[in-house]
Amino acid sequence: MAQKPSIPKGTRDFNPEQVAKRHYIFNTIKQAFETFGFQPIETPSFENSDTLMGKYGEEGDRLIFKILNSGDFLGKIDETIYSEKNSTKLTPKISEKALRYDLTVPFARYVVQHQNEIEFPFKRYQIQPVWRADRPQKGRFREFYQCDADVVGSDSLWQEVEFIQLYDTVFSALKLEGVTIKINNRKILSGIAEVIGAGDKLIDFTVALDKLDKIGEENVKEEMLSKGIPQGGIDKLQPLFSLSGTFNEQVKTLKNILASSGEGIKGIEELVFIDTAINALGLETAVLELDVTLARGLNYYTGAIFEVAAPITVAMGSIGGGGRYDDLTGIFGLKNVSGVGISFGLDRIYLVLESLGLFPETVAKSVDALFINFGDAEALFSLKAIKQLRASGIHAELYPDSAKMKKQMNHANKRQIPFVILVGAEEMQANKFTLKNMVSGEQSTLDLDALINQIKKS
Amino acid sequence: MAQKPSIPKGTRDFNPEQVAKRHYIFNTIKQAFETFGFQPIETPSFENSDTLMGKYGEEGDRLIFKILNSGDFLGKIDETIYSEKNSTKLTPKISEKALRYDLTVPFARYVVQHQNEIEFPFKRYQIQPVWRADRPQKGRFREFYQCDADVVGSDSLWQEVEFIQLYDTVFSALKLEGVTIKINNRKILSGIAEVIGAGDKLIDFTVALDKLDKIGEENVKEEMLSKGIPQGGIDKLQPLFSLSGTFNEQVKTLKNILASSGEGIKGIEELVFIDTAINALGLETAVLELDVTLARGLNYYTGAIFEVAAPITVAMGSIGGGGRYDDLTGIFGLKNVSGVGISFGLDRIYLVLESLGLFPETVAKSVDALFINFGDAEALFSLKAIKQLRASGIHAELYPDSAKMKKQMNHANKRQIPFVILVGAEEMQANKFTLKNMVSGEQSTLDLDALINQIKKS
Repeated sequence: MAQKPSIPKGTRDFNPEQVAKRHYIFNTIKQAFETFGFQPIETPSFENSDTLMGKYGEEGDRLIFKILNSGDFLGKIDETIYSEKNSTKLTPKISEKALRYDLTVPFARYVVQHQNEIEFPFKRYQIQPVWRADRPQKGRFREFYQCDADVVGSDSLWQEVEFIQLYDTVFSALKLEGVTIKINNRKILSGIAEVIGAGDKLIDFTVALDKLDKIGEENVKEEMLSKGIPQGGIDKLQPLFSLSGTFNEQVKTLKNILASSGEGIKGIEELVFIDTAINALGLETAVLELDVTLARGLNYYTGAIFEVAAPITVAMGSIGGGGRYDDLTGIFGLKNVSGVGISFGLDRIYLVLESLGLFPETVAKSVDALFINFGDAEALFSLKAIKQLRASGIHAELYPDSAKMKKQMNHANKRQIPFVILVGAEEMQANKFTLKNMVSGEQSTLDLDALINQIKKS
Repeated sequence: MAQKPSIPKGTRDFNPEQVAKRHYIFNTIKQAFETFGFQPIETPSFENSDTLMGKYGEEGDRLIFKILNSGDFLGKIDETIYSEKNSTKLTPKISEKALRYDLTVPFARYVVQHQNEIEFPFKRYQIQPVWRADRPQKGRFREFYQCDADVVGSDSLWQEVEFIQLYDTVFSALKLEGVTIKINNRKILSGIAEVIGAGDKLIDFTVALDKLDKIGEENVKEEMLSKGIPQGGIDKLQPLFSLSGTFNEQVKTLKNILASSGEGIKGIEELVFIDTAINALGLETAVLELDVTLARGLNYYTGAIFEVAAPITVAMGSIGGGGRYDDLTGIFGLKNVSGVGISFGLDRIYLVLESLGLFPETVAKSVDALFINFGDAEALFSLKAIKQLRASGIHAELYPDSAKMKKQMNHANKRQIPFVILVGAEEMQANKFTLKNMVSGEQSTLDLDALINQIKKS
């Protein structure tokens, strides 16, 4: 045990400054959630394996962390199966629980399990860690927090409107200006696919379209052709590739393309409803933008699709996303519960705030004031004052040992404590406190009330 | 999947009310921690197995949840070992990570790993879940939160003093009056064992003594005798069994018993130092009490031992505990780092507050005001007002659908929303809002400013 201990790859320790910054983000989001009427739930870190397995595709199943059964987990295993020595076959025999992979499936499970206690429409938020056995890389972790808000039990479009306001409220409160909220609608994508004769190739079509920014028009067309979308259909897409202008102008173009598709027109109407409301209500700092190439999680979304892009000055990509889904709880046997939700990409938001210097200066302060310890009598005198300071909300502490003055001052400096208070025999005698401002170097001798006021007003 | 889904035994879902109440406790404690100069850290949910295994005894090792390796975890296993089909032997071959069992060992690992970045004395707190494969029973869960505060890097007794103040501050802030903070000292127990000729039987001696309340004096004596403690020694304990009176009176008796033990006298001096300081500083609502039978986690503690008992009106037992340890980080190769810490028993504190009705009434409120939805025009008008309400800190929302009035009012009732706001054609015309107090039934028509004031002052 002489070698320095370590933590598993893909996991992180958070030091006090990092915890403070993370909680600043969490608390800002929580406050907005609650102002909008969302309420928190929490679910267990591990679920029964059959709750999670099969919900995220084959890749997902592999990335779920499984928990080994306790006790003699091999005892009851059939000899024939054991002798095969096949990891995939053995897993369900020796593991019945698994760590949460996201917050969506546990939420669906929660809604179904507690459906009789829940008053619908149910607006819940959830901020908890999830775990994925992904290959760790820069910005990708095996343990990370997700932060979701969803409404289930209503298909009103006012909720889409509110989620856009919610994004705007959160990012404005975080002082992160210049965020773009992109919106699209699954029905528009389906409509286009239908119109160009690729109705049965919706996924291939959207996967290709989604790459427009990255690989360019020609390559997108080539990919579509290679997937069996007819040339004639691709030709009809031409107006889409050059789609530009305001929300309204884009809508006009889309209406032309989608004239023959009832579903497509429905999608446009939904977009227009949302955009009109947002225009009437106004956004603080964010911008709402129509992005017809936006397709994230298409298998899952049935109406609106959202994605939030960080300000273009930081190359960060998506810092949030979400959409409307119509059958979330169906996997657990509760049909026809429509829902819509959004999530915040916490780790990326952290990086964005860090790189733009947007964390408040005071966010990671340790304590406001350190009392220097000159000996037991002085320490007791100081603790009586400290009690008063703390009761006034000041974060204050006594250096625990009567160490050399220099050592104690160094401690204050290293911890960036703004005020140091010295109480020696003279101060005790006069019932006064010598306050030293560690930034300006100023020093003054004050009574307790003045001391408290001085620290509080800084 | 038609059957209702469930969660693993020993785990819990928390609904909005429960989350709100839990966070009320967490936040009260956090605020006190920070006022006292403690700073938060967070460590990963799982650690490398060799960080945890062997740190909690054999029983602990069995209760640690192990995570199955990903991929073809059987592929590399030696045929001979595999064919033994021995769960204990196979475990380390197929599992390299394990869920955190407490916060203490991860904290020790953190201090050693980050020793060069940490400024000592280091005052940290940590509130995170831990997992134990214990048999679930009433009040015992497989996933539960721990809440620890520790100072490492100083052996000053002022810290013991501060921890007693901290307990008092937290329980006073929670309005939980009548809490008893029991204190003892390992050195006193060692001293007594030495004096009665059981210096090599310290554990047997304290385990027996610890049962005094439960099994009574005669049975304790019998147990000691059966463990090989000489009758002559047990006779010397007589004054201990009838130990009573004030802190000072008990100390006097102990001094007599321990006169010949240097270590015992040292322990008494420490207790007296702490008690004298606490008397000088005063406690808000808690009472400090000497309990010489207190021995929790004795293998681990080297000085002060704390335990907090809930008010006697609730039969709950310990709601917190802690003590001084001198070699926490030694297990990871960093010697001579003295520490002292306390923890809060969150689940029990929750039950105590619940049974005494001490949660603030407002703690679990959902929203302050629900706007009834009479149609799209009214909804948009309402959302403009809601935006202002939210900016004033009021939690407000619009019912998403223009459902029947009765349904919307029922929704407000079921969610115990105190105010409902009605905006129909008339109100829109007059730019007014009809506010209905759902408790008193009172109704009034107000402009936006008056509406906001009315809700805020309630």
